[in-house]
Amino acid sequence: MKVSVLMGSDNDWKVVKNTCQTLKNFGVSFEVHVLSAHRSLPDLLEHLKYAEEKNCKVFVCAAGMAAHLGGVVAANTVRPVIGLPLSGGVAMDSLLSNAQMPPGIPIATVAVDGGMNAALLAVEMLALSDKDLLQKLKDYREGLRRSVREKDKNIQYLLDDLSGPN
Amino acid sequence: MKVSVLMGSDNDWKVVKNTCQTLKNFGVSFEVHVLSAHRSLPDLLEHLKYAEEKNCKVFVCAAGMAAHLGGVVAANTVRPVIGLPLSGGVAMDSLLSNAQMPPGIPIATVAVDGGMNAALLAVEMLALSDKDLLQKLKDYREGLRRSVREKDKNIQYLLDDLSGPN
Amino acid sequence: MKVSVLMGSDNDWKVVKNTCQTLKNFGVSFEVHVLSAHRSLPDLLEHLKYAEEKNCKVFVCAAGMAAHLGGVVAANTVRPVIGLPLSGGVAMDSLLSNAQMPPGIPIATVAVDGGMNAALLAVEMLALSDKDLLQKLKDYREGLRRSVREKDKNIQYLLDDLSGPN
Amino acid sequence: MKVSVLMGSDNDWKVVKNTCQTLKNFGVSFEVHVLSAHRSLPDLLEHLKYAEEKNCKVFVCAAGMAAHLGGVVAANTVRPVIGLPLSGGVAMDSLLSNAQMPPGIPIATVAVDGGMNAALLAVEMLALSDKDLLQKLKDYREGLRRSVREKDKNIQYLLDDLSGPN
Amino acid sequence: MKVSVLMGSDNDWKVVKNTCQTLKNFGVSFEVHVLSAHRSLPDLLEHLKYAEEKNCKVFVCAAGMAAHLGGVVAANTVRPVIGLPLSGGVAMDSLLSNAQMPPGIPIATVAVDGGMNAALLAVEMLALSDKDLLQKLKDYREGLRRSVREKDKNIQYLLDDLSGPN
Amino acid sequence: MKVSVLMGSDNDWKVVKNTCQTLKNFGVSFEVHVLSAHRSLPDLLEHLKYAEEKNCKVFVCAAGMAAHLGGVVAANTVRPVIGLPLSGGVAMDSLLSNAQMPPGIPIATVAVDGGMNAALLAVEMLALSDKDLLQKLKDYREGLRRSVREKDKNIQYLLDDLSGPN
Amino acid sequence: MKVSVLMGSDNDWKVVKNTCQTLKNFGVSFEVHVLSAHRSLPDLLEHLKYAEEKNCKVFVCAAGMAAHLGGVVAANTVRPVIGLPLSGGVAMDSLLSNAQMPPGIPIATVAVDGGMNAALLAVEMLALSDKDLLQKLKDYREGLRRSVREKDKNIQYLLDDLSGPN
Amino acid sequence: MKVSVLMGSDNDWKVVKNTCQTLKNFGVSFEVHVLSAHRSLPDLLEHLKYAEEKNCKVFVCAAGMAAHLGGVVAANTVRPVIGLPLSGGVAMDSLLSNAQMPPGIPIATVAVDGGMNAALLAVEMLALSDKDLLQKLKDYREGLRRSVREKDKNIQYLLDDLSGPN
Repeated sequence: MKVSVLMGSDNDWKVVKNTCQTLKNFGVSFEVHVLSAHRSLPDLLEHLKYAEEKNCKVFVCAAGMAAHLGGVVAANTVRPVIGLPLSGGVAMDSLLSNAQMPPGIPIATVAVDGGMNAALLAVEMLALSDKDLLQKLKDYREGLRRSVREKDKNIQYLLDDLSGPN
Repeated sequence: MKVSVLMGSDNDWKVVKNTCQTLKNFGVSFEVHVLSAHRSLPDLLEHLKYAEEKNCKVFVCAAGMAAHLGGVVAANTVRPVIGLPLSGGVAMDSLLSNAQMPPGIPIATVAVDGGMNAALLAVEMLALSDKDLLQKLKDYREGLRRSVREKDKNIQYLLDDLSGPN
Repeated sequence: MKVSVLMGSDNDWKVVKNTCQTLKNFGVSFEVHVLSAHRSLPDLLEHLKYAEEKNCKVFVCAAGMAAHLGGVVAANTVRPVIGLPLSGGVAMDSLLSNAQMPPGIPIATVAVDGGMNAALLAVEMLALSDKDLLQKLKDYREGLRRSVREKDKNIQYLLDDLSGPN
Repeated sequence: MKVSVLMGSDNDWKVVKNTCQTLKNFGVSFEVHVLSAHRSLPDLLEHLKYAEEKNCKVFVCAAGMAAHLGGVVAANTVRPVIGLPLSGGVAMDSLLSNAQMPPGIPIATVAVDGGMNAALLAVEMLALSDKDLLQKLKDYREGLRRSVREKDKNIQYLLDDLSGPN
Repeated sequence: MKVSVLMGSDNDWKVVKNTCQTLKNFGVSFEVHVLSAHRSLPDLLEHLKYAEEKNCKVFVCAAGMAAHLGGVVAANTVRPVIGLPLSGGVAMDSLLSNAQMPPGIPIATVAVDGGMNAALLAVEMLALSDKDLLQKLKDYREGLRRSVREKDKNIQYLLDDLSGPN
Repeated sequence: MKVSVLMGSDNDWKVVKNTCQTLKNFGVSFEVHVLSAHRSLPDLLEHLKYAEEKNCKVFVCAAGMAAHLGGVVAANTVRPVIGLPLSGGVAMDSLLSNAQMPPGIPIATVAVDGGMNAALLAVEMLALSDKDLLQKLKDYREGLRRSVREKDKNIQYLLDDLSGPN
Repeated sequence: MKVSVLMGSDNDWKVVKNTCQTLKNFGVSFEVHVLSAHRSLPDLLEHLKYAEEKNCKVFVCAAGMAAHLGGVVAANTVRPVIGLPLSGGVAMDSLLSNAQMPPGIPIATVAVDGGMNAALLAVEMLALSDKDLLQKLKDYREGLRRSVREKDKNIQYLLDDLSGPN
Repeated sequence: MKVSVLMGSDNDWKVVKNTCQTLKNFGVSFEVHVLSAHRSLPDLLEHLKYAEEKNCKVFVCAAGMAAHLGGVVAANTVRPVIGLPLSGGVAMDSLLSNAQMPPGIPIATVAVDGGMNAALLAVEMLALSDKDLLQKLKDYREGLRRSVREKDKNIQYLLDDLSGPN
């Protein structure tokens, strides 16, 4: 059971790195490939043919601008496809190119440059049939909560920086 | 294994109906509830407490405007939450309120008013551990393809409507 | 020498009809097909294989929402691809999905629902090596100019509708 | 009588600092806490339970991206909730997530990153039943006016920087 | 203690009616006036002079397009000003004209056409020093919650409308 | 002294009619012509050559979508050019095409479909050297103020329509 | 005959400087003042009372965010008001706050941060009754044209920088 | 057979350089000129008169903000006009000013700052009647594909940078 992380360009690594690191933190197997819906479509299609036998269960597709990578992957698999829109173009080009899929072929879109959330969503999907992973997710959430509590404590010290009499 | 379909208001039924109908077509169990992150938060939280034991594995949260339903549900579960943004406010308020989740708690956002795609995404997730459902998805895709072929045939007849000599 | 007009759904006919009618008016051969980058990608790819031998020189790709049709076609041909974005989604989803192509694979994007302009652009391209077509374009432009003159005359009569003393 | 300033992350301090400093300048009691609608919802709900008895009369909720903090707080109190949208996401995600609240549960939204205005609005609310605070607001406004007059004087000197003959 | 409801044009009544009806439902005194920041600025300024002695404690300013009404009112009072942006112009002109107030003079902005929420926010402010009103707000919230529960029940019947076998 | 009202298409009459009617109300001479920056550029340029000798002092250019009419006129005259953006395209295409002129050649842009305001702005310009026109503008403003007062009276009667006890 | 340049804050000088410099270049008298529609409204109104007798014929109002300065000035004069929207807020807040004026009170809006164009538009208005100024505008335009020709020459040298064989 | 590359200002060279370099790489003849639709319209029109006899077959028009250059060129030729929108204004001003051309006169719009794609689109058009150029395009595409493969290989090494146990 593996997550296939695809990115349209190696420039996208600074965001995709967070996806990979998060998957690694959860101990989830993954592959990562630079494959473009526009510049190397035949290679992408070839790659997708073997996805099932390589046990790829969830896809994360990171692309910017007119982001067609997720659409092409979704057209070739019935496995869940997570769209990770990247910033750098104009307005919300990549967000709309991912989220606004027409009826029949959905993409599960996360926030622009939301590399970590793309991974967490993939983990949540795999955890549907993996109790260990489910427990890790619960632990992770508990960690988030603790981290917010920590930050809440620290913020109290910053109040001393305010000017004027107490 | 059940999909929990939640909607912020009964006005949303015209879109959510497509979600429910699609789930029914795939033979997937589901519940549907009107529960608001703003108007009935205690009821929503109470409801979510029992989601796990009612075997709810995936959530579809349909809401418009400043759509906080998906966020509250996602904060209460580590199961995948699908955000279904509804039109009716200004600009892309509901799309952004769903898609732009901060790091740690993802929402899998589909197109504005994309009721059918929300269901299909839920089915894809459940099919990760259900071979029958996976086959149904493949059959559904084959049906989509046939339907496009049918439309392609019909469009040829419309060419006769064009004015002028052939 | 033929223009290949592709549309993602038969709902798009109301706009694409203008494309076809304009091509017909110019006596340019064309084919029109419903083929989807998402719902019938294998058929689309199969179709594109034979485009060259069917003498398709220019492509018009009409699609709405997250419009990936033009991108997939452009990835499969070095012939000019004209993107015709369709309205109906949110914001400028289809305009951005067509225009914001990443470096290497351009799409020549026209206005949202600009069915006639998509055809005219195709005719301009074909007229690069066809003097008769070039003359027809010049005649068409002369017609546009005459039509504006006609409208200018008519508008003078409407001034009488204004209330109050002259 | 206290203002409760809540922020989704400690990264938000650079804006929230202005809120706190302004409240301090007016001598208004306040608490500030990092509490997340997504990452520490149970803690947030627990916190809100005791807000009334801690005499929290007005809430300022600072959050960015899909900003759900204000919505959750508003759902738990009938005290005025001031939404302070933070920049950093795409487009106007946080502004829309705060302002576009559905009927029944309002949020009083101020400008993106408008930390000072959030405090001033809270002060205005508390001054409804506090004559001293009301006078301080009037004095503050008089100060603003004087400050503009000062700037007007200074700008006249800058005119000398313009090139060319007088 | 009174709410002053101001609107830039009588066309705005269809939204402002909800504001007035809601205030009436809560038994809150209010005045409503058509007064324009652009077309009748002297009258508006004159009106604002007497607001304090007429015991106007909160202002609701409804205006569309380049909505300057709220800004002018806010500049003339230190009482809370609630901005009610109206639809009808382009993009989010009225929302931005209200929410994006520069530092020093805040407007408490609610949703576009959010007439009821403008009233509720005013009531929340007045309830800061009025226990009866506070109780009414709590009752109102309880009513909202009951209403959602009612809708939840009704939605179950609609499930029978779905086609196909149960 | 004349205002030259130019419109890109006769479809624009419904907005431009307001411009003409307002000019007529003020007794200002004007001409109106359908002339397109795209479809009849030579005619437009020819027309502009004689504008000065026909005593055209101010231009109103009404156009929608990618509105280039105002830019071409402004490039051919140093007289003030008022841009009247028309709705009908996507987003704010015509507003941005008018307002965002690069340094050196300004367009005085009014609101989308703001036909009446385009005329009023032209009248204000002509009134710079015409005392009668200046007085008419002052009278018009007084009329606006009276009209708002009238509306304010009428709105009081509508309060009776509100349901519930007084 | 004077241009009154008003700015909401001294931070706006970096843009307004271009307005003043351009007016100075044309030898047009002007005054410049920091006056705020929000922070010093009484001073602004007082100032406007004497504008006519100080012979202010055209106003340039520079403001950012929810830019209400132009609206207040326009409400107090029938002289042309040029709105100069400033960047720094979100989206197009200042552009829309200036351009989208409701019927009756126009603002002549120029590009965001278009300080020079605001001045040029004012000069064009004053040149309606000043032949010397008109000639200066024509000379300026001729200068622009020469400058473009100069740039055209220089760009030819840059072609040598391109890599590869000629 | 030549491509005419026109740019509104020499500031645009940083993007237009990519257009020129790409044309040079393909061995396509081109001219490049700074010519403005606003600042040097007569020169532009004069230049366009001789375009045909200079054998200019395709035009690339690079302009920012309210980009009218493409529209004026398209109005003067029936040869294909490629619009290259430049960033630097607000929102999508230049994209909309190019893409949203009204019916009759199309512009083939590429991505904002998409200098390379503008050239590639021109090459594709010229290759319609030039087999050598067609082959070069195919080789270029093959190069793109190889380059993506190279990047895919390199990305595998970056995986070692991820923290934690393998």
